[in-house]
Amino acid sequence: MLSEVYEKGAVQALGASRSSFQKAIQSVLSVGRELLAKQRSGGIPANGTATSLSQRCLDLLDHRGEASGLALAEEIAAEYQSLDDDQKRLFMLSLAADFDVNTQQIIDLATRYRDDPSYDNLESVAHAVEAPRKKLFRRINMAPDGTRRLVELRGDLLQLLPEHPELKGVEADLKHLFAYWFNKGFLELRQIDWNSPAAVLERLIAYEAVHAISGWEDLRGRLRKDRRCFAFFHPAMGDDPIVFVEVALTNHTPEAIGPLISLEREPLEPAEATTVVFYSISNCHPGLNGISFGNFLIKNVVKLLSDEFSSLHTFLTLSPIPGFTKWLKETDLTELIDDEAMAGKVLEPLGQVVETDVRDALMQLCAYYLLHVKSHGLARDPVARFHLSNGASMHKLHWGADLTLSGRSQSAGMMVNYLYEIQKIEVNHEAYFNQQKINASKEIARLTEQRK
Amino acid sequence: MLSEVYEKGAVQALGASRSSFQKAIQSVLSVGRELLAKQRSGGIPANGTATSLSQRCLDLLDHRGEASGLALAEEIAAEYQSLDDDQKRLFMLSLAADFDVNTQQIIDLATRYRDDPSYDNLESVAHAVEAPRKKLFRRINMAPDGTRRLVELRGDLLQLLPEHPELKGVEADLKHLFAYWFNKGFLELRQIDWNSPAAVLERLIAYEAVHAISGWEDLRGRLRKDRRCFAFFHPAMGDDPIVFVEVALTNHTPEAIGPLISLEREPLEPAEATTVVFYSISNCHPGLNGISFGNFLIKNVVKLLSDEFSSLHTFLTLSPIPGFTKWLKETDLTELIDDEAMAGKVLEPLGQVVETDVRDALMQLCAYYLLHVKSHGLARDPVARFHLSNGASMHKLHWGADLTLSGRSQSAGMMVNYLYEIQKIEVNHEAYFNQQKINASKEIARLTEQRK
Amino acid sequence: MLSEVYEKGAVQALGASRSSFQKAIQSVLSVGRELLAKQRSGGIPANGTATSLSQRCLDLLDHRGEASGLALAEEIAAEYQSLDDDQKRLFMLSLAADFDVNTQQIIDLATRYRDDPSYDNLESVAHAVEAPRKKLFRRINMAPDGTRRLVELRGDLLQLLPEHPELKGVEADLKHLFAYWFNKGFLELRQIDWNSPAAVLERLIAYEAVHAISGWEDLRGRLRKDRRCFAFFHPAMGDDPIVFVEVALTNHTPEAIGPLISLEREPLEPAEATTVVFYSISNCHPGLNGISFGNFLIKNVVKLLSDEFSSLHTFLTLSPIPGFTKWLKETDLTELIDDEAMAGKVLEPLGQVVETDVRDALMQLCAYYLLHVKSHGLARDPVARFHLSNGASMHKLHWGADLTLSGRSQSAGMMVNYLYEIQKIEVNHEAYFNQQKINASKEIARLTEQRK
Amino acid sequence: MLSEVYEKGAVQALGASRSSFQKAIQSVLSVGRELLAKQRSGGIPANGTATSLSQRCLDLLDHRGEASGLALAEEIAAEYQSLDDDQKRLFMLSLAADFDVNTQQIIDLATRYRDDPSYDNLESVAHAVEAPRKKLFRRINMAPDGTRRLVELRGDLLQLLPEHPELKGVEADLKHLFAYWFNKGFLELRQIDWNSPAAVLERLIAYEAVHAISGWEDLRGRLRKDRRCFAFFHPAMGDDPIVFVEVALTNHTPEAIGPLISLEREPLEPAEATTVVFYSISNCHPGLNGISFGNFLIKNVVKLLSDEFSSLHTFLTLSPIPGFTKWLKETDLTELIDDEAMAGKVLEPLGQVVETDVRDALMQLCAYYLLHVKSHGLARDPVARFHLSNGASMHKLHWGADLTLSGRSQSAGMMVNYLYEIQKIEVNHEAYFNQQKINASKEIARLTEQRK
Repeated sequence: MLSEVYEKGAVQALGASRSSFQKAIQSVLSVGRELLAKQRSGGIPANGTATSLSQRCLDLLDHRGEASGLALAEEIAAEYQSLDDDQKRLFMLSLAADFDVNTQQIIDLATRYRDDPSYDNLESVAHAVEAPRKKLFRRINMAPDGTRRLVELRGDLLQLLPEHPELKGVEADLKHLFAYWFNKGFLELRQIDWNSPAAVLERLIAYEAVHAISGWEDLRGRLRKDRRCFAFFHPAMGDDPIVFVEVALTNHTPEAIGPLISLEREPLEPAEATTVVFYSISNCHPGLNGISFGNFLIKNVVKLLSDEFSSLHTFLTLSPIPGFTKWLKETDLTELIDDEAMAGKVLEPLGQVVETDVRDALMQLCAYYLLHVKSHGLARDPVARFHLSNGASMHKLHWGADLTLSGRSQSAGMMVNYLYEIQKIEVNHEAYFNQQKINASKEIARLTEQRK
Repeated sequence: MLSEVYEKGAVQALGASRSSFQKAIQSVLSVGRELLAKQRSGGIPANGTATSLSQRCLDLLDHRGEASGLALAEEIAAEYQSLDDDQKRLFMLSLAADFDVNTQQIIDLATRYRDDPSYDNLESVAHAVEAPRKKLFRRINMAPDGTRRLVELRGDLLQLLPEHPELKGVEADLKHLFAYWFNKGFLELRQIDWNSPAAVLERLIAYEAVHAISGWEDLRGRLRKDRRCFAFFHPAMGDDPIVFVEVALTNHTPEAIGPLISLEREPLEPAEATTVVFYSISNCHPGLNGISFGNFLIKNVVKLLSDEFSSLHTFLTLSPIPGFTKWLKETDLTELIDDEAMAGKVLEPLGQVVETDVRDALMQLCAYYLLHVKSHGLARDPVARFHLSNGASMHKLHWGADLTLSGRSQSAGMMVNYLYEIQKIEVNHEAYFNQQKINASKEIARLTEQRK
Repeated sequence: MLSEVYEKGAVQALGASRSSFQKAIQSVLSVGRELLAKQRSGGIPANGTATSLSQRCLDLLDHRGEASGLALAEEIAAEYQSLDDDQKRLFMLSLAADFDVNTQQIIDLATRYRDDPSYDNLESVAHAVEAPRKKLFRRINMAPDGTRRLVELRGDLLQLLPEHPELKGVEADLKHLFAYWFNKGFLELRQIDWNSPAAVLERLIAYEAVHAISGWEDLRGRLRKDRRCFAFFHPAMGDDPIVFVEVALTNHTPEAIGPLISLEREPLEPAEATTVVFYSISNCHPGLNGISFGNFLIKNVVKLLSDEFSSLHTFLTLSPIPGFTKWLKETDLTELIDDEAMAGKVLEPLGQVVETDVRDALMQLCAYYLLHVKSHGLARDPVARFHLSNGASMHKLHWGADLTLSGRSQSAGMMVNYLYEIQKIEVNHEAYFNQQKINASKEIARLTEQRK
Repeated sequence: MLSEVYEKGAVQALGASRSSFQKAIQSVLSVGRELLAKQRSGGIPANGTATSLSQRCLDLLDHRGEASGLALAEEIAAEYQSLDDDQKRLFMLSLAADFDVNTQQIIDLATRYRDDPSYDNLESVAHAVEAPRKKLFRRINMAPDGTRRLVELRGDLLQLLPEHPELKGVEADLKHLFAYWFNKGFLELRQIDWNSPAAVLERLIAYEAVHAISGWEDLRGRLRKDRRCFAFFHPAMGDDPIVFVEVALTNHTPEAIGPLISLEREPLEPAEATTVVFYSISNCHPGLNGISFGNFLIKNVVKLLSDEFSSLHTFLTLSPIPGFTKWLKETDLTELIDDEAMAGKVLEPLGQVVETDVRDALMQLCAYYLLHVKSHGLARDPVARFHLSNGASMHKLHWGADLTLSGRSQSAGMMVNYLYEIQKIEVNHEAYFNQQKINASKEIARLTEQRK
């Protein structure tokens, strides 16, 4: 009754509608918990170890009752959260070993299919190549917060993968499922502003990955009238955003991040803005790595904002070059720089005052890095790779644009604008993937030529 | 601007939130349409035949650009709708033939896996056993109303399947995708009443499959204070419900459908009700056949209503027996009825006046049919199968309970109550599936004993 | 719990929020009912007569407890509804007589004020000139649906006023209160369409006063994509609209009502429309007579629609001339028409075929009636008076524009367009009120000149 | 377009619906601004002085055009805000002098009424005793934020009133209007929690008047699962609350404020709570002084919470005694305390350690103050007066319950529980007003007896 008042009065339409389902599943779940308790002779099984969790998972695979199965799935999701890192690792290894495909069965069924390529035999093979853990994950996904727990699980997995290549299959199975569940058709675009629920806003503060938000005052500054923030949400993740982008409306191409996020700036009237600056894009969940939404988000926002304000004609980013100094240190610069002294100087930590020729050398090297240093045929710099894959072009490089500690240490204080021209993004995207062609402004091209 | 006013003022919170995404995809789509037009040298391709549609589908499979791909998917969804029945059939056959798996490739990859059962080789097999049309369907699903079009497609397919068994794979692929997309975790439970949007209500009128709603007045009668209606909705289907159940709150076990849906009845105060009657459950989309939600809906409603009104203690249905007379006609009754004359009489069309012994014979035969006539180990009657699978028990059989034309011709005018006892449904469900045991009241059991 | 699901899931944001207060008052009210029952020694007082109702009203005037006072107000509102017409009349007479000002007290206090015009003495006079029934009405207004009941009461009063001039004060007191309560600042503008709640839509069907809506199908036709409907709502009246306007988007000046409301018409793409036609404005509650919102509604809609569709440049009505034939019959036409035969012909009932000269005469007479026949210095025709007061100008007169029974009998089948030019409406309004100047097109002016 | 996305996606249904009207009025207003500019020959009038503002007010009184009148009202509201304190004072004096009633006219009309007490003559008097500024205020109220500006105006007035008694009439006129506009029937009860918009939450931080909220973290602590916050909102004030109450759910009668608002406390499961503590009630707008809603809010919350959690049976406050030490200092204690030394000791500032007999004396004096010190027949302590007027009883006095600076200096560190027993509040209320009877627990009564 009480919560009703709130729901009706002050509530976010959406949070409200979503929770209607939560309630629904809670109804069936409360029945399920009782039924599950009854079914168990001799009380609740031991808890808190990879073994007990694996056992519960095996039970769930064969479980029949819908309501009690839901209760079991809920237990599993909760137990995973309660494990320590070591037990989590053991549990993942159990997922890899005990819930894997049956190789011999696949071989047998494939042989039968070879002899008789009927539809039924094909289906048998298709069924056999799907590891039982996928069915397990689907069932866990039904529990309240099940999706969220699985996203966390994959986040944990991705960290262990380098040391435990045998977990590859588990990770890939989750990714495959996520590709279905996080279908773009289920995403919801919401604008976030100072009228958004505090429960959503505090997540922005927590998730901002590029230019940290220091608290509520700082956040409020980023939600002023000449700022915008958009996020994708997903029904199974509630008010927890998937990805969000912070946008500044300006009347010039920004050359440094400081003034953009300063609390002291004078807000511009949105109707006077000409330029949309995407100055920060944050993926909120490491477990969704590789399931990309940032591109789709940016394209949506480009169109939405250009429909809202006819005065807007330029859409670009102000982006870090996070891989630059790392590359610099790993590279034999003698091939790139004639002057040996300079090859040393560019590696020195950036001081307050930088000599003009060092600056020039760094800018040229950075342009070279962005345009010519590749990995698997694509730009090595991760941020460059993201925007170029989206079909953006490289627009302008700015010296002294990010003088924070991380800006100096990763990007030598430089930042770059990537330009989104909606009419060209698909052509650029094609050229980038088919011919490894990076579309860059003359200004940037010239910088690399100077070096070479 | 105008629609804003509406959206803010009068709107369903939810419809509103959903359409925010529609807008989003519309934004990217409008760009995509332009880009697609540019990419095409020489105008829009021919339209309206299975061949042109298959060609578009092939294009979409290889298409790169996100926005223009979306535009292409939209064209495909629209073109399918515009085809006549014959072209639709040809298109489905093309889906079966031209977008199928590559048998030789599967065999080769399976051989490689046999020789080296590595994860990569397994993944290759898994990829190969998935027909390209699944990728196609996933892409179509991205277009606005794409999901809806695919649901229609499967609805059409299911009708053709008996004549075209070669379409089995296409149908199964769609069903497999639907199982992911229509995950219960994405469903939303909404109560529907006279404050619901007319656009939703008119769908109830259209979809009611059990006891037809004759118009708005009739609908209003079914939404009075002692009536409830609940439906599941899905984000990709907008305001189009998936399944809905109509519920009456009464203070007795109903014995006939007429009084339940009569406009003349005097509404009961809900707080005085003791009994919840599920008198109609309608699946709204034939294309979702086999993806069952009715069970989950009923369980939710049982719990929700028992939480709302503490006076409610009995939850049951009033259900038709749609397969009874059909079975009666197909069956050699001499084994069941000693009296030959009676064996003839029970097959006669039901008149206004029925002799007592004919009535008794019919009721006994009906009880026998419900309890003992099986198909694949489960109740042959589809409605009985549904409720027994859900874990309900068979409660009471009523003579003269549905005197409409279809009630008389299918169920010999009888109806049956299935009882939902929340604490027993899982045990019943298990017993039903594991031991083919049907839980029935003594009264019904006695009826069958009288006969035999 | 149950209603929660609905509220969260499918609900009109607004209905929802409003009901939060209803709930609130219900809470206090349920306590109040108990307290009121306790306070009464010897059970509930007699009910259902003007006397018993007046007695309850006297009690309420002096009542102290907030909650029990609310319960008493609720009883009064309910009892008024239950009275028959005769008892209602008696009750109103009691309101006039027993709840009136105290003349002698006013005179005494005014004398004191004359002797000492202090603020306190002024306040005493101000308090004395306010009849006790105003306090009574304010208290009734607190009960759930209290406002609604008072609006009905004034509606009833207005019908009795011609026979019972002694009720004038009661009516005026209510009007005075309504002017506060129905402050424009509390109105909410909502667009109504096919997604609006059925409970709102059925009220449109009931309230449409100009061109009757025959049922749900007809309503649906009026809510198609080239039609709009806007209404004002008020917090105290829930989902019951105050006034609504039906709008057609067209690409020409409409000359007849039939094609505008025909279900057969082909809907226009709104973006192609040039013209906004206000073809029906309905005040929903007779009890709000004289508290005008139509003007404010039209101005809002003009601005909203012109902001939404830049192609819209003409805003006009298609209006009846409801007082024309009545005036015609009452008037000595010999002064206006030279030809005596014609003076007779124009009074004949309108046949299927009308002679050209009769038509011309009727149009000229109608233009004369609209432009020159006044009442208290303003146009005598009520619809003309409404639009001219709003600042519209008279644009065009159409023969054979409304061939329904009422159209023929009241307006001789003619209709007129009033033009809303947003930049001119205040000037027109001023000229109309200050100089009795009616702004009319040359075409209409010419018609009157022909006659004279 | 952009804001649409937000509105649909993430927004508070209600804020949304309200702003639909804001938009509406904005539409008419934007027309009005143009029209107003045209009407003015020779540009915008001077601005920023009481004289120019009074002149604008005089213009508005006679203004005809609705849209341009709205624009004028908007100018007035804005200009008032821009005035400095001195000009504001001058403007108020002008409201008192230049917009007052016409004494001679009242006298003349009253004389006419004396000679002929007809309804028309009565109405003339009623009209004449209403100062023109009331009409002015009604017109200003129409402008966006007009209500809010008038509430501020009255807030400013109340501060000046002691020095400027001639402003009494202006203040009273506003209060009279507010009584209509802030009718309880227009209030909306909303529960506020961590999902509420940040824009609302930051107002709580600003308005909390009793136990200051130090920032977002502190606020979050007050919105945990065992805490509740409810507020009344009013349509004309948007998301700006009128009054709010902070509630703690506990399982004991609280004896000190510290633990209740500590961030370190362990939250209780709401279902285990037995006791509802109203530990802070804040009126948000000084300009609404005397238009009381706190009582109505508490009664609503009592009922709502007892409906939600059946385990709750005790509803009480934990309240300061803000007038105690002030009274102590002003009072001749020799009459109350025999021991002269003690009479001195109780006046000393409260140290860390307090002697037992001083503590006893202070508690006895405080009980005496609460129960027996009156002003106009009612409790002199303002918080006591509020709760006793509401019908609460005095339950328990706690030593050392508020050791903050203000707690020690105003209440000698003590706090008191007022008990709300819903069945007794009206009887208590009656007894309090009719017989000056204060309902107190034996424990408190005994304290006073000890003293006397």
